[in-house]
Amino acid sequence: MIAATDAGAAMQTRTRTISWADPERSRIILNGLDGHEQLAAIQRGEVAPPPAVALLGLCLDELERGRTVFSIVPDELHENPMGTMHGGIVATLVDTAMGCAVSSTLPADAGFTTLELSTNFVRPITRATGRVYAEGTVVHGGGRVVTAQARVRDDDGNLYAHATSTCMILRSAQ
Amino acid sequence: MIAATDAGAAMQTRTRTISWADPERSRIILNGLDGHEQLAAIQRGEVAPPPAVALLGLCLDELERGRTVFSIVPDELHENPMGTMHGGIVATLVDTAMGCAVSSTLPADAGFTTLELSTNFVRPITRATGRVYAEGTVVHGGGRVVTAQARVRDDDGNLYAHATSTCMILRSAQ
Amino acid sequence: MIAATDAGAAMQTRTRTISWADPERSRIILNGLDGHEQLAAIQRGEVAPPPAVALLGLCLDELERGRTVFSIVPDELHENPMGTMHGGIVATLVDTAMGCAVSSTLPADAGFTTLELSTNFVRPITRATGRVYAEGTVVHGGGRVVTAQARVRDDDGNLYAHATSTCMILRSAQ
Amino acid sequence: MIAATDAGAAMQTRTRTISWADPERSRIILNGLDGHEQLAAIQRGEVAPPPAVALLGLCLDELERGRTVFSIVPDELHENPMGTMHGGIVATLVDTAMGCAVSSTLPADAGFTTLELSTNFVRPITRATGRVYAEGTVVHGGGRVVTAQARVRDDDGNLYAHATSTCMILRSAQ
Repeated sequence: MIAATDAGAAMQTRTRTISWADPERSRIILNGLDGHEQLAAIQRGEVAPPPAVALLGLCLDELERGRTVFSIVPDELHENPMGTMHGGIVATLVDTAMGCAVSSTLPADAGFTTLELSTNFVRPITRATGRVYAEGTVVHGGGRVVTAQARVRDDDGNLYAHATSTCMILRSAQ
Repeated sequence: MIAATDAGAAMQTRTRTISWADPERSRIILNGLDGHEQLAAIQRGEVAPPPAVALLGLCLDELERGRTVFSIVPDELHENPMGTMHGGIVATLVDTAMGCAVSSTLPADAGFTTLELSTNFVRPITRATGRVYAEGTVVHGGGRVVTAQARVRDDDGNLYAHATSTCMILRSAQ
Repeated sequence: MIAATDAGAAMQTRTRTISWADPERSRIILNGLDGHEQLAAIQRGEVAPPPAVALLGLCLDELERGRTVFSIVPDELHENPMGTMHGGIVATLVDTAMGCAVSSTLPADAGFTTLELSTNFVRPITRATGRVYAEGTVVHGGGRVVTAQARVRDDDGNLYAHATSTCMILRSAQ
Repeated sequence: MIAATDAGAAMQTRTRTISWADPERSRIILNGLDGHEQLAAIQRGEVAPPPAVALLGLCLDELERGRTVFSIVPDELHENPMGTMHGGIVATLVDTAMGCAVSSTLPADAGFTTLELSTNFVRPITRATGRVYAEGTVVHGGGRVVTAQARVRDDDGNLYAHATSTCMILRSAQ
């Protein structure tokens, strides 16, 4: 692939500068907090969000144990060749909402890893859609495996995507 | 979410400038080409890749009808809170490889939409992993529905993720 | 379905005689009815259920447009080597509930085909569980693609499995 | 749902008698064998297959570590209302092939549970199709999680369905 910059001026190059914070520093600050406290600290702006969240411009709008809402404003930078939001970016949105919903239920000595993520895309998201919101909720919270679901809607409640995920809980003792 | 920039200097802010080209311009140039020709033009650097591909730094390494290989170099910017590549970015990689594998089989008057994407994450991808490659291949090519699969491997052939996708073909006549 | 009769010697063989009706006859009777009317006729006992439903002993408990509840009583015949209900039989239960939820929204001249079925198994189902109920509901009803979800619960509301499905609508005109 | 027998003679009732062996007896015989040895004993006919396999008429055709082939002959009893093999029965076939592929890699003191099963249906299976074969193979064999895939083909190699599954390994020590 040619670097986007090489295609240069002739192609009406646009640029965007992404800023993010040293993630190791965030991990040090968050160490010892349970999952909900970690997310609350990020939501209050006391700790920088992880880089991938900064890269895509995801916003943590709502947080409670077992449920989060993350939103994103569709941007030209998110577009696939068809001019709609790339399915992978929708997947990033729902994965974040579900992963954080799972994380919000975990004690300080536990983590998780996502085993599987399934996303159904039911309507294209464009810049005309405006901000979309992914509500992630825990469906089944077991000791070793937690499943979650997400729904992506716009301000009018129209559905754009829905998703399911399977996460495995990792405990320090293991 | 606090804007990454607000957390500022105290948090050792890093920045990256992303460049991309006007996607409408690419669509005009690619109009009338079949799916394989469109991808070949992007691979040759004659047409800028779509914005989401520029945003994440995906590279189209190999292209044939029904098969593509896209790669990505893990970067701090791709990280989730655990310091590994965000599952959504892995999903973007496999979605791109599979979607383009499907697209590479389509005539000029057809497009597609992804109905569903399922990804299994079997090993974490970190910066130590180095470049990873998603090979996307068509599994079943029907007239209305095409399914594809992807495998994500490193230079040593270790598997990190695998995925399946269901795409619906859209024809101009419809 | 008829009760088991005891038999067997060396391997303590058990037998069960399954009864079902000529499905072609049911199709003739149901022809011209919309999806909801077809299911209602089966629920009222005016038309025999399809063979696979008879084979597994599925029961249509509730029916409305876009929603069905099917139930099954776990039986030794449904067991996998671990002595729990075979995941495929759980998949049959949720596929039936979701497919009929989709069908219940269709006019007389339309049918559907299931493109994809994803099931999460969150607790084993045993004979001790007693009857389990799969509630299938339409999540997104589009003109060409409909998605549905299902939840499998026992009489106490405990969750055993959940599922998502993608169906494509087939119209006579096509 | 009305019992199939009530619809009675007027509906041209058919019957089939299913035979199976006491599964507890099989479990006692198989106890202490590793996963491959258990399946080999069933394949040799020394131990009765589990009830669900008998109910659907699945046949274990090929067995090696990490790979199995199970087949089924489409029968009127497997039909959904459209007269094709019920998707849940296809799911049972692929779940069996993948689960046994996973099991064939496990030592005597380990078991597994299926967390998630995703199936894509790409062509309808009818009685005219004849016997179909599901080849199940392990894709990633980890210590705690194993993923597998399956392909369902007929004697001519035509693809009818493909599937992926995520299994969690359970060890006696845990």
